[in-house]
Amino acid sequence: MSDVALFNMIINPNIIEMEYAVRGPIPQRAAELKKHGRNIIFCNIGNPQALGQRPITYYRQVLSLLEDPDSIGRERNLRSLLNKAGLASKALLSDELLNTAEDILKKMETGMGAYTESRGPAFIRQAIARFIDRRDNIDEEGIPSDPDKIFLTNGASEAVKFILEMMIASPKDGIMIPTPQYPLYSATIKKNGGAQVNYYPDEDSDWNLKKSMLEESIKDAKKQGITVKAIVVINPANPTGAILSEKSMREIIEFAKEHEMAIIADEVYQENVYDGKFISFAKIIGKEAVPLFSLHSISKGFYGECGQRGGYLELRNPPGIKDHACKFLDVLVKQASVSLCSNTAGQLLTYLMVTPPLPGSESYPLFFKEKTQILDDLYEKAEIIRAAFKQMDGMKCFGRIGALYLFPRLEKLPAGTDDFDYCMALLEETGLCTVNGSGFGQKKGTNHLRIAFLPPKEMLKEVLPQWIAFHNKYVNRK
Amino acid sequence: MSDVALFNMIINPNIIEMEYAVRGPIPQRAAELKKHGRNIIFCNIGNPQALGQRPITYYRQVLSLLEDPDSIGRERNLRSLLNKAGLASKALLSDELLNTAEDILKKMETGMGAYTESRGPAFIRQAIARFIDRRDNIDEEGIPSDPDKIFLTNGASEAVKFILEMMIASPKDGIMIPTPQYPLYSATIKKNGGAQVNYYPDEDSDWNLKKSMLEESIKDAKKQGITVKAIVVINPANPTGAILSEKSMREIIEFAKEHEMAIIADEVYQENVYDGKFISFAKIIGKEAVPLFSLHSISKGFYGECGQRGGYLELRNPPGIKDHACKFLDVLVKQASVSLCSNTAGQLLTYLMVTPPLPGSESYPLFFKEKTQILDDLYEKAEIIRAAFKQMDGMKCFGRIGALYLFPRLEKLPAGTDDFDYCMALLEETGLCTVNGSGFGQKKGTNHLRIAFLPPKEMLKEVLPQWIAFHNKYVNRK
Repeated sequence: MSDVALFNMIINPNIIEMEYAVRGPIPQRAAELKKHGRNIIFCNIGNPQALGQRPITYYRQVLSLLEDPDSIGRERNLRSLLNKAGLASKALLSDELLNTAEDILKKMETGMGAYTESRGPAFIRQAIARFIDRRDNIDEEGIPSDPDKIFLTNGASEAVKFILEMMIASPKDGIMIPTPQYPLYSATIKKNGGAQVNYYPDEDSDWNLKKSMLEESIKDAKKQGITVKAIVVINPANPTGAILSEKSMREIIEFAKEHEMAIIADEVYQENVYDGKFISFAKIIGKEAVPLFSLHSISKGFYGECGQRGGYLELRNPPGIKDHACKFLDVLVKQASVSLCSNTAGQLLTYLMVTPPLPGSESYPLFFKEKTQILDDLYEKAEIIRAAFKQMDGMKCFGRIGALYLFPRLEKLPAGTDDFDYCMALLEETGLCTVNGSGFGQKKGTNHLRIAFLPPKEMLKEVLPQWIAFHNKYVNRK
Repeated sequence: MSDVALFNMIINPNIIEMEYAVRGPIPQRAAELKKHGRNIIFCNIGNPQALGQRPITYYRQVLSLLEDPDSIGRERNLRSLLNKAGLASKALLSDELLNTAEDILKKMETGMGAYTESRGPAFIRQAIARFIDRRDNIDEEGIPSDPDKIFLTNGASEAVKFILEMMIASPKDGIMIPTPQYPLYSATIKKNGGAQVNYYPDEDSDWNLKKSMLEESIKDAKKQGITVKAIVVINPANPTGAILSEKSMREIIEFAKEHEMAIIADEVYQENVYDGKFISFAKIIGKEAVPLFSLHSISKGFYGECGQRGGYLELRNPPGIKDHACKFLDVLVKQASVSLCSNTAGQLLTYLMVTPPLPGSESYPLFFKEKTQILDDLYEKAEIIRAAFKQMDGMKCFGRIGALYLFPRLEKLPAGTDDFDYCMALLEETGLCTVNGSGFGQKKGTNHLRIAFLPPKEMLKEVLPQWIAFHNKYVNRK
């Protein structure tokens, strides 16, 4: 057999065709330029700590104690030694921190190095359920979250793969996804050999979504014999930063109910709503006969712990009220057990995310200060970039500010060029690495780019004037 | 649509059919018993730290410092404070540890909270390549490992899924797996809708493997129109603990070459060879035109860091020598990038696994003591259990001692019962949780069980007499 034949024999053709722009040709070129000494600003991905965001002190101090349980005793020994000598030091951790870590280790039973239950330890799933209930104010009205229907995952990416693998068995199994969308969805549908069914929120009315848009999209899919198993909603949206209205959410639920499909609610940016309030699908959906998978993650929000790969998936309304609800869950548990469990550092950071320090505690003031600073900064940085867009010919940016991204439309481009050419030229000229709109999907004939509003303000102040100059020269060239 | 219909519509039937005995009905029953206060010894899974094995101190101390980089400065402040006061304390970490952590953080650049390169950071992949070269003595002869062809993964389980997803695109795509095997393989083949092609090492000659056995198996597969894409070899083997001879390895390579398929070498138990020496496929395969995927993990060996989910996959001889070798790798990198990256704690423990403290360093004596103690203990515990088998009627255990498991054959069982019934009864009677041989696959008409030889010796001394009594009563009942 020739090499080419062996290559083709071994590799699943779906994987050859699959695309993933967020780490595609432009970021790859950026990495190459960086290797050769160029100063690159990586705005292609929501990776805050790569752009200088410091981790939340409290989270890391607790995690560090958990990874080396002996350190708790060592800290105490040092404190008593210093006390005896009449010395004090800020370098010692507070008793509150040591007690928190000790308390967690007690709950974990087998520490950080053992496989946990496949879904994740029960005490973490219980804490997540309480977090969801608090967030959604279920004391007033609503249905409590069920810890048995929560699965800890290696980031939300793994949750997405988990759900789509569970659903897609044939090329006629369809998943509805927004256009534009985060390419994890299109790539995973492709890899599993399913059908991608696009729907199109309306950019010109701030990416607003109406049931009629969904109806249009499913009509086409049904014509092609596709069974749509689920609709994906990303809220706040990636890449557009748009935030759904409650009205749109209710229309989506109605649509899913009528057409008998599940909802996959990617809510990893739920803390990244800078003006307004996040509303979860879990709160709105009630007991409708619509299976709901909601996702959250430690990678975004104000924590930005991307590399630690923690997250969870919450299931509501599994099909079947008696026997089958149970069986549905059993199947998910079995599927989760093949991966044994998600990583414990990610699990524990997820636990800390849902049990932050409370007002009045010793750790609270610093925690609150760090949290507020990061969220305020993000909003300010988004505004700074949006202001720059106003100085760029034909650069139009819709949407409230949500998530970590801006997704402006390039209304003016030289003939024969598209957003890919523009982003590549922008990178070469200024070192700014963004992603072309076509990497996320977009309405035919439009051009966009996505930029993560993460670089430090000083960096923005330096690069934005360069971008403006580049832009106006590029789009007006003859 | 009825609930049952909605259930069937949503779930991929392959996932409903998939089986995973290691976390199947027997372990589930064990968890239930534990909830009700029974004392259970979980020997169903290789999860050392759940059975009291302590993590290696050096690994955790470094990891703990990495998770909270400020702690390095805090330690130094405390030391200088104590020095000034003329005090000393064993509770301070050594300079060597602090320097090691600092050095790693410098190499990481963006710390533990940022997404890394999808394959994992270059400095870790380089360290892995050097580890492989040392292990395989390539100074004497051999081909150096290439860091560009190494991928860090969330444990070896993710690597297996990664490879099989890449290969399986149709029900006629086959993967050869040993029988018995670790059920991750059968489950993942099933989930991806591929064909499982069994081959049968010879139990009666210590699970020895000959090319003729492989030929027999592929002949059957070809008759059914199956294209075999790869052969899986687990060495040392799970569940049997068997260790392949170099002769068998060469026959496997020859077979793979003749029939044009890849080799997937699951070598996660490479440190768990208690009498003899581990030989890697990477060392033997040379430049044969056989693509080789070798897997390793931090979950086993003497480290047992299962919950931290770290591991790597090394690729050799990708198909195509010039253009296509490159393209093959590009496809793998693209596939890896969809998951963004593996978790950083797992990555860093993998780094520490391949860069252990060197003789002469301050950390070495304790590290060496802990390592030796764990490996010696494992061997001793395996011998204690094997000795107990000799007191059980018709209990026959072949194989050298490798990996973390014994897989004895139950030659005598009451009519109408099988190994599942036996293991369930053993659990109910003694609290000992093992897995029935049928959960791994076995020759028709035979019965086995797998036990992980992990419980502390005192625990074994208590439970083994109970097991012997149970066994002889159970198998001799009328």
